[in-house]
Amino acid sequence: MKFLHTADWHIGKRLHEYPLVKEQQDALAQIAQIAQKEQVDAIVVAGDLYDRSLPSEEAVTLVNQALRDLNLTADLPLLVISGNHDSAVRLATGQEWFKQTKLYLHTKLSEAFTPIEFEDTQFFLLPYFELQEARNYFADESISDLTSAMKLVVAKLKTKFDPAKKQVLVAHFFAAGSLRSDSETKIEVGGLDSVPTKLFSDFDHVALGHLHDKRALDLPTIKYSGSLLKYSVAEANSQKGVWIVETEPFSCKWVSLAPLNDICCLEASYAELTTKLYQTVAQDDYVAIELTDEHEIIDVMNKLRKYYPRIVELKRKKRLVHTKQAEKIESKSPLELFTDFFVQATGRKPTQLQHKWAKESLLELEKEGE
Amino acid sequence: MKFLHTADWHIGKRLHEYPLVKEQQDALAQIAQIAQKEQVDAIVVAGDLYDRSLPSEEAVTLVNQALRDLNLTADLPLLVISGNHDSAVRLATGQEWFKQTKLYLHTKLSEAFTPIEFEDTQFFLLPYFELQEARNYFADESISDLTSAMKLVVAKLKTKFDPAKKQVLVAHFFAAGSLRSDSETKIEVGGLDSVPTKLFSDFDHVALGHLHDKRALDLPTIKYSGSLLKYSVAEANSQKGVWIVETEPFSCKWVSLAPLNDICCLEASYAELTTKLYQTVAQDDYVAIELTDEHEIIDVMNKLRKYYPRIVELKRKKRLVHTKQAEKIESKSPLELFTDFFVQATGRKPTQLQHKWAKESLLELEKEGE
Repeated sequence: MKFLHTADWHIGKRLHEYPLVKEQQDALAQIAQIAQKEQVDAIVVAGDLYDRSLPSEEAVTLVNQALRDLNLTADLPLLVISGNHDSAVRLATGQEWFKQTKLYLHTKLSEAFTPIEFEDTQFFLLPYFELQEARNYFADESISDLTSAMKLVVAKLKTKFDPAKKQVLVAHFFAAGSLRSDSETKIEVGGLDSVPTKLFSDFDHVALGHLHDKRALDLPTIKYSGSLLKYSVAEANSQKGVWIVETEPFSCKWVSLAPLNDICCLEASYAELTTKLYQTVAQDDYVAIELTDEHEIIDVMNKLRKYYPRIVELKRKKRLVHTKQAEKIESKSPLELFTDFFVQATGRKPTQLQHKWAKESLLELEKEGE
Repeated sequence: MKFLHTADWHIGKRLHEYPLVKEQQDALAQIAQIAQKEQVDAIVVAGDLYDRSLPSEEAVTLVNQALRDLNLTADLPLLVISGNHDSAVRLATGQEWFKQTKLYLHTKLSEAFTPIEFEDTQFFLLPYFELQEARNYFADESISDLTSAMKLVVAKLKTKFDPAKKQVLVAHFFAAGSLRSDSETKIEVGGLDSVPTKLFSDFDHVALGHLHDKRALDLPTIKYSGSLLKYSVAEANSQKGVWIVETEPFSCKWVSLAPLNDICCLEASYAELTTKLYQTVAQDDYVAIELTDEHEIIDVMNKLRKYYPRIVELKRKKRLVHTKQAEKIESKSPLELFTDFFVQATGRKPTQLQHKWAKESLLELEKEGE
């Protein structure tokens, strides 16, 4: 059989406060077109449909529309899991009804062990799970890291293998050896860590979600599809798209999505930026600028906005602040920066208790950023 | 045909910070039992399934479970509308799939005009709507109040009447002449107002949501079912339950729900409360106490909690503060109280601008309370 693999839609996500609704709608429509053109038998969505566990009504409308378009209008089976950005509980709404039209949505670890059966292929939909869910499921409080948990999961999944069929795993985690981009949330917080890919060697294919660049992993049968859109300036040169996978005989093909509005990085002087260069950039593109000028330019952001309405980043190639000091700052941890600031502001060092509070607060903030 | 009419579940609502999950689960289970015992052909839920537009994961779990139990397990058609407390967008998730098992969920005004057809009865599911939705739908910006909007709605609904059948309207609004209880949110804020019941005289029956006491309206064929539970101390003596309605020949019967934990109002002295009286109250009941003592009792709340673990209200029959002053305070508006407090705290009257700010903030707070 033939399926399309997408993931990390992150519907609701903004790029530096610019809403990306139109871009997301457009990319989802392109996926529907690719699915039709490639005549796939199913679509895999490997987690993080939403950007937040409490998505806005606008985001809910968009995801509901996408599921309707792909499953009800295009009449395609959907194989969906929840990612670390989704609320498993909220996403599960309607789950039992979805099955009737072959929209399979797994949000609990326990659901992974019921394969979705196609004529020649079994799909195992393993949602993102926290360690405690694995401890509860296996009734084993000693599970101390994700790799140990995943070993148990894979061992149990294997008991469901039908030797007459191919096996595809759909999952959402950080595979060891992968490269990161800028817009994923680190899931290692709280003891979770990357999982070695060799654990999954008995699957004919693994369709992953979590990392936003398909180049994060370079293996023939374990793939990240990457995110729906470029969700950070660091991804400006990362191609977005979907995998078209055939299970028998095996093949895996990349199909790109054309960005409705692209991220464009410019390194130039103010003079260059305001004379010719802007004519090469589409008005709706998101622009990251690195100014090569060394002198100060008053109100530079507002001036540049007239040429580039959607500036998402404005940096100096050569910093105006004293370089040595800047380097020092860059090498410091948030806690060190806090301590410096405290000394500056109060004239004395934080007490041990204050230091402890700051540390805890920073840890809390880090977690919230997930 | 025969149907069960319930409304105003307000799943997620708390009683003075006590979560009511168990009570809500129990009441929903009773409804399923009544439906089975009465052998109804359908269940009507007339809005406010949730207490908040952004329900907690726990609330989502509970509502999803209830819909599953009633529609999939008990195999009953469900006729559901969104109320003013629901997010129409969020509640609509899964809507298109729900239909397949006769779970009809209407959350938009436009959907009201497609009746749900049973052999001898048409159901019109009219969700709670804002004036602007009516203005958009009828392309008429001059619609200035809910009654005008409702007239247009009813006129259009009538064009869908099948003369061979009975017509039932399911709706969520404040019917003129109704009595209020304490736990509804006023929906008149923002220009909305009550709607005269005579508008609906062409329906064989009207199953309403919004008001929490079934006694709010005393008409033979226009009924509030009231809320799932007693959601305020003022409702302590209000009976909760569901209507069993037969359309041909018409009959309408009340079936009570037995409260898992009741609200109990006690008016007694501290001595009475701590000697015998507590033995008459179930430990898990919610207790509102009106103390008849006139002298001060140190730490009275904590002392009483030993006898009544779930105190939701503690009042004095005779106020300890100077009575005249207390009466004065009661008659004052929040803005007047603010002004008094400002004078007390700063020694001068608020400026006109400060007065304006206070007024706007209070209005904002009032809206948030919706």
